[in-house]
Amino acid sequence: MIKRALPVTREADFSAWYQSVITEADLAEESGVRGCMVIRPWGYGIWERIQRLLDDRIKATGHENCYFPLFIPLSYFEKEAEHVEGFAKEMAVVTHHRLVSDGKGGLKPDPTAKLEEPLVVRPTSETVIGMAFARWVQSWRDLPVLINQWANVVRWEMRTRMFLRTSEFLWQEGHTAHATQAEAVDETLKMLEVYRSFAEECVALPVVAGEKPENERFPGAVATYSIEAMMQDGKALQAGTSHFLGTNFAHAQNIRFQNAAGELELAQTTSWGMSTRMIGGLIMVHGDDDGLRVPPRVAPWQVVIVPMLRDQPEDEAIVDYCKALQAELAKQSGLGEPVRALLDLKFGKAATKRWGWVKKGAPIIIEIGGRDVAGGNLSVIRRDRLYQESGKLDSAVVARDAFVGGVGALLEEIQTALFDEAHARLRASIAPVEDWAGVEATFGEGVKNPGWVDVPWSKPTGAALDAVVERLKALKLTIRNAPMGQTGHPDQAGGATTCIFTGAPAVERVLIGRSY
Amino acid sequence: MIKRALPVTREADFSAWYQSVITEADLAEESGVRGCMVIRPWGYGIWERIQRLLDDRIKATGHENCYFPLFIPLSYFEKEAEHVEGFAKEMAVVTHHRLVSDGKGGLKPDPTAKLEEPLVVRPTSETVIGMAFARWVQSWRDLPVLINQWANVVRWEMRTRMFLRTSEFLWQEGHTAHATQAEAVDETLKMLEVYRSFAEECVALPVVAGEKPENERFPGAVATYSIEAMMQDGKALQAGTSHFLGTNFAHAQNIRFQNAAGELELAQTTSWGMSTRMIGGLIMVHGDDDGLRVPPRVAPWQVVIVPMLRDQPEDEAIVDYCKALQAELAKQSGLGEPVRALLDLKFGKAATKRWGWVKKGAPIIIEIGGRDVAGGNLSVIRRDRLYQESGKLDSAVVARDAFVGGVGALLEEIQTALFDEAHARLRASIAPVEDWAGVEATFGEGVKNPGWVDVPWSKPTGAALDAVVERLKALKLTIRNAPMGQTGHPDQAGGATTCIFTGAPAVERVLIGRSY
Repeated sequence: MIKRALPVTREADFSAWYQSVITEADLAEESGVRGCMVIRPWGYGIWERIQRLLDDRIKATGHENCYFPLFIPLSYFEKEAEHVEGFAKEMAVVTHHRLVSDGKGGLKPDPTAKLEEPLVVRPTSETVIGMAFARWVQSWRDLPVLINQWANVVRWEMRTRMFLRTSEFLWQEGHTAHATQAEAVDETLKMLEVYRSFAEECVALPVVAGEKPENERFPGAVATYSIEAMMQDGKALQAGTSHFLGTNFAHAQNIRFQNAAGELELAQTTSWGMSTRMIGGLIMVHGDDDGLRVPPRVAPWQVVIVPMLRDQPEDEAIVDYCKALQAELAKQSGLGEPVRALLDLKFGKAATKRWGWVKKGAPIIIEIGGRDVAGGNLSVIRRDRLYQESGKLDSAVVARDAFVGGVGALLEEIQTALFDEAHARLRASIAPVEDWAGVEATFGEGVKNPGWVDVPWSKPTGAALDAVVERLKALKLTIRNAPMGQTGHPDQAGGATTCIFTGAPAVERVLIGRSY
Repeated sequence: MIKRALPVTREADFSAWYQSVITEADLAEESGVRGCMVIRPWGYGIWERIQRLLDDRIKATGHENCYFPLFIPLSYFEKEAEHVEGFAKEMAVVTHHRLVSDGKGGLKPDPTAKLEEPLVVRPTSETVIGMAFARWVQSWRDLPVLINQWANVVRWEMRTRMFLRTSEFLWQEGHTAHATQAEAVDETLKMLEVYRSFAEECVALPVVAGEKPENERFPGAVATYSIEAMMQDGKALQAGTSHFLGTNFAHAQNIRFQNAAGELELAQTTSWGMSTRMIGGLIMVHGDDDGLRVPPRVAPWQVVIVPMLRDQPEDEAIVDYCKALQAELAKQSGLGEPVRALLDLKFGKAATKRWGWVKKGAPIIIEIGGRDVAGGNLSVIRRDRLYQESGKLDSAVVARDAFVGGVGALLEEIQTALFDEAHARLRASIAPVEDWAGVEATFGEGVKNPGWVDVPWSKPTGAALDAVVERLKALKLTIRNAPMGQTGHPDQAGGATTCIFTGAPAVERVLIGRSY
């Protein structure tokens, strides 16, 4: 039995394991402020990589970044009253603009500085951005408007969980307006595909892109699409959403344009978002019992060099050797970018540092001692495969020059290996099921990591859909999405053509599972 | 008389001119939310360039980025009661976490969802980051802690002005903790120098770095340093500050460490920030009566290609020629980065587009018509020198290949030209003055753009300083800073050794002027 770096294993307690990765990898911590976390440098560094890579893809598809106010006047939500039901009730409300002494040595909101109209801290920016679109759009020549914002948003949450559900979180929200429905639908699906390819290529997170059922739509949306990733406990994590809003928001916010024929029309709008939640997914997909494993593309440091110093005169030669190595690595290219190599000269024992980087999940850890310097070598640990079959730590001595020359290829190999491992697990954990009994069997009491089932359904609406949702709820299940690329003939995937809920002819297949 | 692109000149009404640049260059606009602005793509693109370049320098000096909560419990400010006086009274206070129907078709904060402890929207993060430092720092081995945060902050402002003073603004705030005072002072000055070099090298903004007088210190700081830039109306803009906080914040927040001798000591802390205000400075230093002029390093697009299309079959060849040119330019390097070239294919007349880019201040505007395609040429407009001496627009036809080969050098030339122009103006607008009468003469009624004076003073404190501040206030003046690099012998700069305020021997020279 190998002793692992974390105090708890995934097998023993997945939820405690998740929290221990966050702590031991220095990703984030409690802030002392209810529902808000401090994102520490390693966690924030991953977010910066996500931002950089996703932002490049958002810009490459023609979008520009803007910034809109944090505060939204309460009356904007009244306009959207029919959409408020969904998520917007629990919101942080600013009511005063001054603090004064309470006469007891403390402070209190100044009663004379009460705002005439309370301000809501943005839970999302559809309303305030829609107001801007109404100003910007006059004619068909002003369309499309394609913008994106990187921002913090606040949704008051009663139960919080780091990265997955916090009162404040960081995200990007794209908002677009178009002249025609076809263009807006294209945009919605284009950004869904940007999310899918980004998640798979950059975060090495295999996902299923598809349409959410009616009951899971964003309030006010005509259609909501998502990418769904599978965690190692078999639960789903919605890792990004893209909404086709039709003219619903344009109607509420009066986004109208004169078409080529001179008539006034409502614009068709979309919105789409991805958040720091992605880091929660990264942890639960790639983490192991030794901590996090960060895919090279989103790793703040891809190669970490740990010198094995002994407070001896020889140390200087070791440090020089390491510095030269770091400089050489920075000149190499991997996954289309310069290699990011860190020389860890912080105070501490080499073994402690090594395990620190194992827990953080740096893709490649290099150790260098006096013997390595003498032989022109270095010791390499690949974080994605830490142990030999025997259970021994797999630290290989290789020639320095060979390592430097091959580092780009090695990073690509690690990126691919992490994706392939997760992809094989995802594939193996989705079971085609053709009747309700099969669903009950899959998600029965005591079944561990049941994964998802892939079932045919007739896409009921209204009360019939409510009944389906209730039935699933009893097993703590939800419909995740209807995967893209179905031709309308459900039999291609499993053979059955009968809805497992209604007995009516099925029109598509949907994925069902437990979720975060 | 040349007809200019803006509706108002700097000469006629500097303040109205400033606002017209913001509007005409599509930098920002009113949001409909009190004191908050919408930063539009061209303005936000400049901010993104500022972020990228400054962030590189912050990281190169060993700092890591983190993220701390937007909300700060009210009690944290009580701890800092002695520091609250300064700026922290006007703050946005969150008191409720839910909205409910008001029974009249509207919404209101839910009285049953009142927070036990109100939350303040961060005006700056010293308190909440100090609390984290107290957790992180136990031993001298944990020091220094060098972190930075990019975030939005809120300071309730009664009178707002876009980019210069808005209730919400974007900034970076660095926070560090050190074992010794010497290290913390070094850090404070190092970051001041990062700001100086960044402002001058990237934004082409000549500044004077120096120490603020006691009365202008950040509340709780032992010493505050700033970089001061001069606007074209002669007023000063504080464009970045760096604070040495001594042990004041460490004391309030209990940031203690065990030193090598095993004794508990208070850490020495610093903080430093630069904000979207910088964009206000960029406008007022580089703008002219045709709009903004963006220095190439911070220009979202450095070269904009405008095809002159006529809805004729020849258009296709023009567009192809432009696309090939754009691709060629993107392969060139200028100012250490790939050239950022945009092909403007939006709907509209070429002349309208040209003037749009003039107003936005793209460094190089290229126009291409059928004749250019036939001759292998293009027409170049340099935004930094728009007109010939005759007053004609200076649009030069040059060979395409020569332009492509020289574009990197041209961008460097424009960057340098903008800096040199502003630097010459700054130099010419600082007058050494050796007595109070000289100050009164410089800033008398009716003197336009008086600039700053450079005077010897005895660095009075307490009541004597208050008297100086009052005297200056009557002329709407403030002491900007005491420039760095003075040896303590003020006579090196101007000859006088007597304080113009107190008549006592001078110990240094300070800059005095009006300010934003």
